[in-house]
Amino acid sequence: MRSASLLLALAIALPTHAQQATTTIPQSALDQVPALRVRALADRTGWNVVESLTTEVGPRLAGSEADARAVEWAKAKFKALGYDKVWTEPVTFPKWVRRSEHADVLGVHAQPLVITALGNSPGGTVEGEVVRFPDLAALDAAPEGSLAGKIAFVDYQMQRYRDGHDYGVGGGGGIRGKGPSAAIRKGAIGFLMRSAGTDTSRAPHTGMTSFEDGLKPIPSAALSTIDAAQLARLVALDPHTRVRLALDCGIEGDYTSQNVIGEITGHGPRKDEVVVMGGHLDSWDPGTGAIDDAAGVGLSMAAGALLKPLHPQRTIRVIAFANEERGLFGGKAYAAAHANEIARHQIVSESDFGAGHIYSFNTNAPDSAKPAVDQIAVALKPLGIDVIDGEGGPESDVGPISRLGATWASLSHDGTNYFDYHHNAEDTLDKIDPKDLAQNVAAYAVFAWLAAQADGGFGSAPKAAGDAGD
Amino acid sequence: MRSASLLLALAIALPTHAQQATTTIPQSALDQVPALRVRALADRTGWNVVESLTTEVGPRLAGSEADARAVEWAKAKFKALGYDKVWTEPVTFPKWVRRSEHADVLGVHAQPLVITALGNSPGGTVEGEVVRFPDLAALDAAPEGSLAGKIAFVDYQMQRYRDGHDYGVGGGGGIRGKGPSAAIRKGAIGFLMRSAGTDTSRAPHTGMTSFEDGLKPIPSAALSTIDAAQLARLVALDPHTRVRLALDCGIEGDYTSQNVIGEITGHGPRKDEVVVMGGHLDSWDPGTGAIDDAAGVGLSMAAGALLKPLHPQRTIRVIAFANEERGLFGGKAYAAAHANEIARHQIVSESDFGAGHIYSFNTNAPDSAKPAVDQIAVALKPLGIDVIDGEGGPESDVGPISRLGATWASLSHDGTNYFDYHHNAEDTLDKIDPKDLAQNVAAYAVFAWLAAQADGGFGSAPKAAGDAGD
Repeated sequence: MRSASLLLALAIALPTHAQQATTTIPQSALDQVPALRVRALADRTGWNVVESLTTEVGPRLAGSEADARAVEWAKAKFKALGYDKVWTEPVTFPKWVRRSEHADVLGVHAQPLVITALGNSPGGTVEGEVVRFPDLAALDAAPEGSLAGKIAFVDYQMQRYRDGHDYGVGGGGGIRGKGPSAAIRKGAIGFLMRSAGTDTSRAPHTGMTSFEDGLKPIPSAALSTIDAAQLARLVALDPHTRVRLALDCGIEGDYTSQNVIGEITGHGPRKDEVVVMGGHLDSWDPGTGAIDDAAGVGLSMAAGALLKPLHPQRTIRVIAFANEERGLFGGKAYAAAHANEIARHQIVSESDFGAGHIYSFNTNAPDSAKPAVDQIAVALKPLGIDVIDGEGGPESDVGPISRLGATWASLSHDGTNYFDYHHNAEDTLDKIDPKDLAQNVAAYAVFAWLAAQADGGFGSAPKAAGDAGD
Repeated sequence: MRSASLLLALAIALPTHAQQATTTIPQSALDQVPALRVRALADRTGWNVVESLTTEVGPRLAGSEADARAVEWAKAKFKALGYDKVWTEPVTFPKWVRRSEHADVLGVHAQPLVITALGNSPGGTVEGEVVRFPDLAALDAAPEGSLAGKIAFVDYQMQRYRDGHDYGVGGGGGIRGKGPSAAIRKGAIGFLMRSAGTDTSRAPHTGMTSFEDGLKPIPSAALSTIDAAQLARLVALDPHTRVRLALDCGIEGDYTSQNVIGEITGHGPRKDEVVVMGGHLDSWDPGTGAIDDAAGVGLSMAAGALLKPLHPQRTIRVIAFANEERGLFGGKAYAAAHANEIARHQIVSESDFGAGHIYSFNTNAPDSAKPAVDQIAVALKPLGIDVIDGEGGPESDVGPISRLGATWASLSHDGTNYFDYHHNAEDTLDKIDPKDLAQNVAAYAVFAWLAAQADGGFGSAPKAAGDAGD
């Protein structure tokens, strides 16, 4: 029994492709790269797609009227770009709506504060003294019950990094996710945070929060960074500063949107295998979702279209995911719908970090694919892209399927300015540099082309249930 | 008769002071300048006053609850800074209130547009096709009646200059002032303009418009520069693009605010003469009125306070004017209240162009005062200030009294970035560089000190009625 279970364990640990000879990319494919790079850098398709989505559809909060228009837009755009197959797959989620949001300082320093409700926040009007905390740890350390009848205010200023890592645990995104529940546990009636953003502006950053099971949700919102600084000064002047927070928003039943998928069909015996690129179609509502994530949709649609005349061996699959913003619903639905086709995923990628210059290429492909990975790296190098250990990961919506065993690739955008505009009203077309976007398109086109032409795979194989949570 | 009227004309043309010996500044006053400059550059009073007003009062639209708080604040601040006399003078004006403002593109490209109502706009909801004009001249050239049932959209992008001159006639401010009436004359039911701003942002710029007599006012608003670009793209895609403009705002009776005046009393025989500095106390409501015009209030209060220990000969009068924004009401009221004291005004100045580095000093003082003017210029030179012909003029609220004959001085701020934040939500404390503000304080302190100590005047004298409209 023991040796049998050892064999089983080995079979799980060694995915199918790892048992093949090493994966390489044929010279005939590499020979096409210089011309592909040139063509991609001169191509305006990526820009045109981003302009079209952000202008014609505009803001497209998941579940809104614009969500449905975005789905129709994506289907039409795939067809117009010459994709061979276009279809949709349903994605169902609780619909959250935002109607109005106001906050006011009360009393002798009365004045409005610019805020935005956090996604999933309930509506409601609360009024209470503001208690300021410099960060989430300070809120967590507050005595039990100490915020009874009060509004918690976490005033953490997110720091600027190329890889945006201060959006993570303890940073801006971490506070947004965990802060409201932490505040509820201390008795707070409302939650305010300095926006998870690196800008100095009056544009507050929205984004999803979630409430832990068993806690009664409270109105939760983000102040613009400037309004947070103002409130901090007011609280310093008067520790009894009171604020009224009035949100009209909340969850209203379920909504079914669609992942929209377009394919450039492969040629030959490997055409059932797919190279996945994509972005997410939904956006937060204050901006028009240009960097988040019309850019990802546009650059992957454009990269796929550039490959059509090259007749790739494997199929190029571009996915415009539904409702990434409120919890990866599109990515989870895609993984669930394609859980039995993991090995058919040659490699999966998504662009969901803006349209800054791509500076790093990474993948979790096994050693057997290293020769091909190195060849891709050489082909990306003239675009200013290096392999930097530890950068990147399976981005947003390809996370769920990568956890099922699909090998991911990551092309990391420079995110130095990303959190100036992320999830706020300033996420608009003008924030995208057409030259950077063209470089992004070129990077994805080269990567996808070479992955599609590789002799051998990149290690995608179903994981055992116990591994799927990696 | 003829020679008598010629004599009268000469008497009018030559103000009292011009008949004196030339005006100079005694060496004892000049000797104090270097130490004064050093002290001013190191002084935090200007910053503290600006921070106090923008934080504790916040936005202070003329006629709002905050207007009254601002008046109390100014009285208290003058007293706290050691001003010898503090009083108020009433300023009455029609009160305009802003309650809500929305605009939406209708139809297949449905999306909200970020707008702000123009001051004096009536409320109302209108819906119609948008007709875009590149500038005011194009709107003026539209055929009569051609905008019947439509919304005019003047899409002029204001250009950036150090002296901000594209805010003038034909530029951003000109369009805001004249555009609505021009649109009404062509039959329009609503007016939209690209904000009079040099920024690329979602923060629309408000500001006063006015409607010509005999025209029925229409809802009038400014789009953020980014929303204007978006609407321009949408109109290019579909010339029948329709917009709904819904404003809840309007004039609601009269309100009486106050000019708040503080004096450092002069010493000796010239103490009845005043050197005037100031800024305006009111602000538009989207921001906290930091550059417009807490800066002017703060730097003049600070400059005056710095002169108190020097015991100036003439009185230093600092004025925090009421309701500049909706039509110089404070400046007009001051001129009316002091029309019989023109000759007592040694020289008048106001700072109402932000807190950028002051680069130019100018005055309309007559040739008889040129020696003193030159001495002031030499004293300002170490602060990086030159005399540049044709720069400057009687700023905002000192315009009315200068038209009655008071000699003006102007210290011109570098306004390169001023129209990024002017009249929008981004006019907040963080836009002020403390070093620039300290330079501003030093410039005003040096100027006011030397004007107060001058042997002789700068030419202020009542103008004949026929000249007052200059």
